[in-house]
Amino acid sequence: MKRIGFIGLGIMGAPMARNLLKAGYALAVHDIVSEKVRALADAGAQAAGSAREAAARSDVVITMLPNSPEVRQAVLGPDGVLEGARPGTILVDMSSIAPLASRRIAEEVSRKGVVMLDAPVSGGEPKAIEGKLAIMVGGPTEAFEQVRPILAVMGSAVTHVGGIGSGNVAKLANQIIVALNIAAMSEAMVLATKAGVSAEKVYQAIRGGLAASAVLEAKMPLVLKGNFRPGFRIELHIKDLLNALDTAHAVGVPLPLSSAVTEILQALKIDGKGADDHGGIIQFYERLARTEVRHAGP
Amino acid sequence: MKRIGFIGLGIMGAPMARNLLKAGYALAVHDIVSEKVRALADAGAQAAGSAREAAARSDVVITMLPNSPEVRQAVLGPDGVLEGARPGTILVDMSSIAPLASRRIAEEVSRKGVVMLDAPVSGGEPKAIEGKLAIMVGGPTEAFEQVRPILAVMGSAVTHVGGIGSGNVAKLANQIIVALNIAAMSEAMVLATKAGVSAEKVYQAIRGGLAASAVLEAKMPLVLKGNFRPGFRIELHIKDLLNALDTAHAVGVPLPLSSAVTEILQALKIDGKGADDHGGIIQFYERLARTEVRHAGP
Repeated sequence: MKRIGFIGLGIMGAPMARNLLKAGYALAVHDIVSEKVRALADAGAQAAGSAREAAARSDVVITMLPNSPEVRQAVLGPDGVLEGARPGTILVDMSSIAPLASRRIAEEVSRKGVVMLDAPVSGGEPKAIEGKLAIMVGGPTEAFEQVRPILAVMGSAVTHVGGIGSGNVAKLANQIIVALNIAAMSEAMVLATKAGVSAEKVYQAIRGGLAASAVLEAKMPLVLKGNFRPGFRIELHIKDLLNALDTAHAVGVPLPLSSAVTEILQALKIDGKGADDHGGIIQFYERLARTEVRHAGP
Repeated sequence: MKRIGFIGLGIMGAPMARNLLKAGYALAVHDIVSEKVRALADAGAQAAGSAREAAARSDVVITMLPNSPEVRQAVLGPDGVLEGARPGTILVDMSSIAPLASRRIAEEVSRKGVVMLDAPVSGGEPKAIEGKLAIMVGGPTEAFEQVRPILAVMGSAVTHVGGIGSGNVAKLANQIIVALNIAAMSEAMVLATKAGVSAEKVYQAIRGGLAASAVLEAKMPLVLKGNFRPGFRIELHIKDLLNALDTAHAVGVPLPLSSAVTEILQALKIDGKGADDHGGIIQFYERLARTEVRHAGP
């Protein structure tokens, strides 16, 4: 059974690491916040004082960090993964970062014989706790097959999409669609409300047709309750969309709608709603149209 | 059994009228194109020389026409429905028109004791043929209950949304969501392709999560085949979105993304693609990014 180093014990990383412990893996864990390391050590993990130390004790190193700069720092920086890794170590970066950053980091670690996979996840904290994340993986097939049993502990749908960076490309595609589907629902439902029609009845009338979506089913009931507790925070969705726009500029694709929805999310963040769920996009429209979609009642 | 007048025998109206004939209703049909009237007469309908004449022979008059001006003309114009109707006639406008136009026409016909419902449909020609349209109805409950059996012949989901105009508000909400969900898929998949990742693999990786939608399932397989045969034409979707924007301006809702996707559709129409299926939105991105998402193979 492979020994695993796990770096980044935040809202997502901590439950993912706990599931690996429960599955019987030996885990060396590290986070820049020492209390988070202690919490996992109490659950049976070995505390590592640095990413280097976690990597030195492991065959597979998993990183779960906020964005590209944090991953670069943890992998390539002083006392980082690369200093502790050996030829043959597999680095699985499960953070959602820019695909081009994944490719560059993979190239740098390959000089020491370390193979990298990018394996961002979708599903948020609830699915991380349940071990039912969707995991989109990019990188060499052989390395993917070696870590597949480990990924299967954390996710219920593990898909090998292509070469290094492909996992993050799939994640960005996912995030573009989710943000725009939420904004589409928002424009439709604020228009209906302001035109004097019950958004709930419109929802019932259209949810079985071509307008049907997972977003409509997940977010519309929350919108009708005025519940914007995260879930997935607006400020994190901004990060993903900025990575999508950077990637699009680099490869030459215009994304006018993704760009517009990013600005709408930015407006909400400026307005103090960055920690709201991304379903809260509707508040941008509600505020400007001076209406609320939520229904009366309990 | 109520006698029905049916005005507008186009791609949608003709199969809807045929289904009413099959269900045993006496039908007086009219269209400005006389061959279309003859085709229905051959199937057992009575040919009417005008909308007035069709209305004079009927208890319920159904209109299925391109847009608001055509409905106004057929209902309120010379030799129109109102000239032939009696107090108690129910007018069911199944066209997709501006909700404010529905409200104004309803007010005018009410002076002669005619009750109007707006009952636009979703599902396109295939569902019209199968009698499985989604029908969104606005107007008085009593009139809705009287024509519900007739609507149930043409549709499998018949929803009473609210007062007059509400059916068209629900339809506009539906069309906003569908157009933006197609555009979202397009931005995501052209980005993936141009970043060197198989759009089909990205589709497989994300279709089970929060990015899932009826649009993704209906349109992505066609996009992968490069098949943009309508289906629902880009130029008709432009009409619906312009009605949505007009309504939004009248009631005071900003629709920045609906406005942007309307311009993208307009660009495609200018480029000669107005008769393509709305799934062809992706061609706007493919052309600018100089790539094609379609996969190789059969």
